[in-house]
Amino acid sequence: MQHFLSVKDAIDVQALVKEALLYKKTPYADKHIGKNRTMGLLFFNSSLRTRLSTQRAAQNLGLELIVMNVGQDGWGLEFEDGAIMDGNKAEHIREAAPVVGQYCDIVGIRSFPGLLDREEDYSENVLNQFVKHTGRPIVSLESATRHPLQSLTDLITIEELKTKPRPKVVLSWAPHVKALPQAVPNSFAEWMNAADVDFVITHPEGYELAPEFAGNAKVTHNQEEAFKDADFIYAKNWSSYNEYGKILSQDPSWKITTEKMALTDNAKFMHCLPVRRNVVVDDAVLDSPNSVVIQQAGNRVWAAQVVLKQILLKIIREESPYLF
Amino acid sequence: MQHFLSVKDAIDVQALVKEALLYKKTPYADKHIGKNRTMGLLFFNSSLRTRLSTQRAAQNLGLELIVMNVGQDGWGLEFEDGAIMDGNKAEHIREAAPVVGQYCDIVGIRSFPGLLDREEDYSENVLNQFVKHTGRPIVSLESATRHPLQSLTDLITIEELKTKPRPKVVLSWAPHVKALPQAVPNSFAEWMNAADVDFVITHPEGYELAPEFAGNAKVTHNQEEAFKDADFIYAKNWSSYNEYGKILSQDPSWKITTEKMALTDNAKFMHCLPVRRNVVVDDAVLDSPNSVVIQQAGNRVWAAQVVLKQILLKIIREESPYLF
Amino acid sequence: MQHFLSVKDAIDVQALVKEALLYKKTPYADKHIGKNRTMGLLFFNSSLRTRLSTQRAAQNLGLELIVMNVGQDGWGLEFEDGAIMDGNKAEHIREAAPVVGQYCDIVGIRSFPGLLDREEDYSENVLNQFVKHTGRPIVSLESATRHPLQSLTDLITIEELKTKPRPKVVLSWAPHVKALPQAVPNSFAEWMNAADVDFVITHPEGYELAPEFAGNAKVTHNQEEAFKDADFIYAKNWSSYNEYGKILSQDPSWKITTEKMALTDNAKFMHCLPVRRNVVVDDAVLDSPNSVVIQQAGNRVWAAQVVLKQILLKIIREESPYLF
Repeated sequence: MQHFLSVKDAIDVQALVKEALLYKKTPYADKHIGKNRTMGLLFFNSSLRTRLSTQRAAQNLGLELIVMNVGQDGWGLEFEDGAIMDGNKAEHIREAAPVVGQYCDIVGIRSFPGLLDREEDYSENVLNQFVKHTGRPIVSLESATRHPLQSLTDLITIEELKTKPRPKVVLSWAPHVKALPQAVPNSFAEWMNAADVDFVITHPEGYELAPEFAGNAKVTHNQEEAFKDADFIYAKNWSSYNEYGKILSQDPSWKITTEKMALTDNAKFMHCLPVRRNVVVDDAVLDSPNSVVIQQAGNRVWAAQVVLKQILLKIIREESPYLF
Repeated sequence: MQHFLSVKDAIDVQALVKEALLYKKTPYADKHIGKNRTMGLLFFNSSLRTRLSTQRAAQNLGLELIVMNVGQDGWGLEFEDGAIMDGNKAEHIREAAPVVGQYCDIVGIRSFPGLLDREEDYSENVLNQFVKHTGRPIVSLESATRHPLQSLTDLITIEELKTKPRPKVVLSWAPHVKALPQAVPNSFAEWMNAADVDFVITHPEGYELAPEFAGNAKVTHNQEEAFKDADFIYAKNWSSYNEYGKILSQDPSWKITTEKMALTDNAKFMHCLPVRRNVVVDDAVLDSPNSVVIQQAGNRVWAAQVVLKQILLKIIREESPYLF
Repeated sequence: MQHFLSVKDAIDVQALVKEALLYKKTPYADKHIGKNRTMGLLFFNSSLRTRLSTQRAAQNLGLELIVMNVGQDGWGLEFEDGAIMDGNKAEHIREAAPVVGQYCDIVGIRSFPGLLDREEDYSENVLNQFVKHTGRPIVSLESATRHPLQSLTDLITIEELKTKPRPKVVLSWAPHVKALPQAVPNSFAEWMNAADVDFVITHPEGYELAPEFAGNAKVTHNQEEAFKDADFIYAKNWSSYNEYGKILSQDPSWKITTEKMALTDNAKFMHCLPVRRNVVVDDAVLDSPNSVVIQQAGNRVWAAQVVLKQILLKIIREESPYLF
């Protein structure tokens, strides 16, 4: 694996999932393969699960770590080519990225969208400039339009818990008080479309995901219809893609409730977290035995670990071809 | 040891102190026992000594570390059950705590009191919710009402320096410009009451500690009387418990001076630090040979190390009972 | 090596450079020498290269690390002797420094000048108080008047790339939008004056460096004259030393351009970074094959590593004299 930015970087999705579940049983089996290598984690935005789980995964592989909150610890970066840098940005990505690449063997980047300019956000300018200029494998820790470590985790969790060969998986929009990115639902849809599941998306009108992410998923505006016979309910709020970054609805009738969960085939409840209790989903659902959100969060370690392993193997293979 | 929240978690206080002093001589004797385990340090508040000494202690035991400033690196947490989370708190402790528990084998928490609502602070809601929901051993890095790693350190320092079998230890209130928590004096009192010392507390009227902490300590409002024949003077400011969180006095006559130290039996001067020079205590006292504040701060490593060792031993024992 | 604060701490500059270039070939040759020791990195100011490269260097030597943003993670420090600390500074350097020394075997400090009071800045009060009170080797991560890890890096890069026994090295002032410290040019001058190079400084009138740093360097106000036959152009902005901290000129005609580089003997372009593109230097220069700024930044690791090695060797020698 060269980089890990989207499902396209997973050569064999099913193999990744299987290996991740193996790591869950034997976390330290590959403790030696990160030896004498350092992973840098650069956060342009807040993070709890990604911050901690990626560190744990790296430690399990024997990697050293350097963690940096870019804005707090450093300064503003310029991403525009040809800029005359007489404003408040002190360094250009054309220097910052390759410099980080001098010190780190693998670089993880978290950078959220601005939600103001769709074209800008969907161009993935920040992530792509790191890919272009760092000279090292880049791991997305959530970019403007995708959160692939989360989505791989989600698939691992579904594989771990499914009771049918081809479960029905429902991504349901749910209300929220803030405008949120489309990264998690985009990415989830992308990975579900690549997996062997019956995938349904339900949301109010106007919340259609970008076509390249929704793909061939069944889409319905009837949430109750969608929930019928579902095996997994994946709840998430997102802001509008069409009226970009806008909150079109806070309709509380889209909240996930016990009554709605009763329509399913005893479905597991999933959410990437953090989740606003009693806004997105009722306490009763989150605290029920069918909620698997903590187990799901725990699987973030194995998703990150299997991705880092693939990247490390490629590095080692290129450095020491005679070993292979 | 299951958790480390107060003196009650120390099965044998004297044994802990002895082991800590052994670690001071051979810091790396147990470098293997933390192997393949990670300690998470979560700071809701600023920290210098606790931050650094706990990291060093963990490194001495071979633990990996993940450090997080919760507010800066992440987001606001909700601690109220049943809350409708439509405000500025993005995640509930019911998710945050068990998620951290998925990534870390031991979790340290620093969370100061608000000093506005005594019942709320003394309920130790934040710490207790981490204990309840994390599913991992919790180490207090100073909570609303206690600072047990500091108090264990203090006892280690007294044991190390005492010249009599049962020294006279005086906790003296001293003036300060800000309203400070009662955590350090509460905790110090709790540990001194459990140790074999002649323990005296002196403070202006209105600064009585909560009865469950003061215990059977002798209490006097006459500072000079208290200092007579003392072997250890432990200075600390705190705000009022009765008129909760209030500054009732900034009386400079309570400052620790060379003249007052002359009343003692050549007492050692102790303070948990940070200390406001020439407000709490005169330069002349802090810079005298009888000041042991730096040695005391250094002992924070051995206190943390012996606590982490006890917790690790319990984890290992439970995972591999056949070893024991 | 006791401390690393300036070129004076390098017993043999050429030997340091040679060893650093050896580390570049075999980074992990001394992985054992940092075992069971911890380096603390204290940042009073932002940092990217220094933050990351020093961590990587420490990891390459097997050191453990504790990183702290002093202002964010802790609180304000008082540096004045005899201060009555009733303001917003919570701890005095006389406690903070020796306490850090209790937890860390080597301490790195970054502390920029205020640029308001020349005498204060040039007294290096902050750095010197750490040296005085920490009781451990101190490594400057850039102080008020010097950046020795950068300057050693610069000399390593010149040694690595020079094509003549005694190359012509030109330090050129360049325009900028903010008032910047003199630390980098001061330090660069100090190291170039100690090396076997033909050293020229060029800047507008009023930008003279302090005499103790400029030393015997040739100084000219004619930038084009200076560039003639140069082998290395080292660009950097700084504020005035004479009219202390002032911006006397933002004259864009001092910007480094392709036309000016054409006057040189195919010179390499150097800069310590971060650099304001198209203000300090044109894109065309930075993106040309003659720009070595990334390679230069990469050499920060080897500079830090060789310095840490020298310091570790001294520590080990003092602890175990029978080994030597």
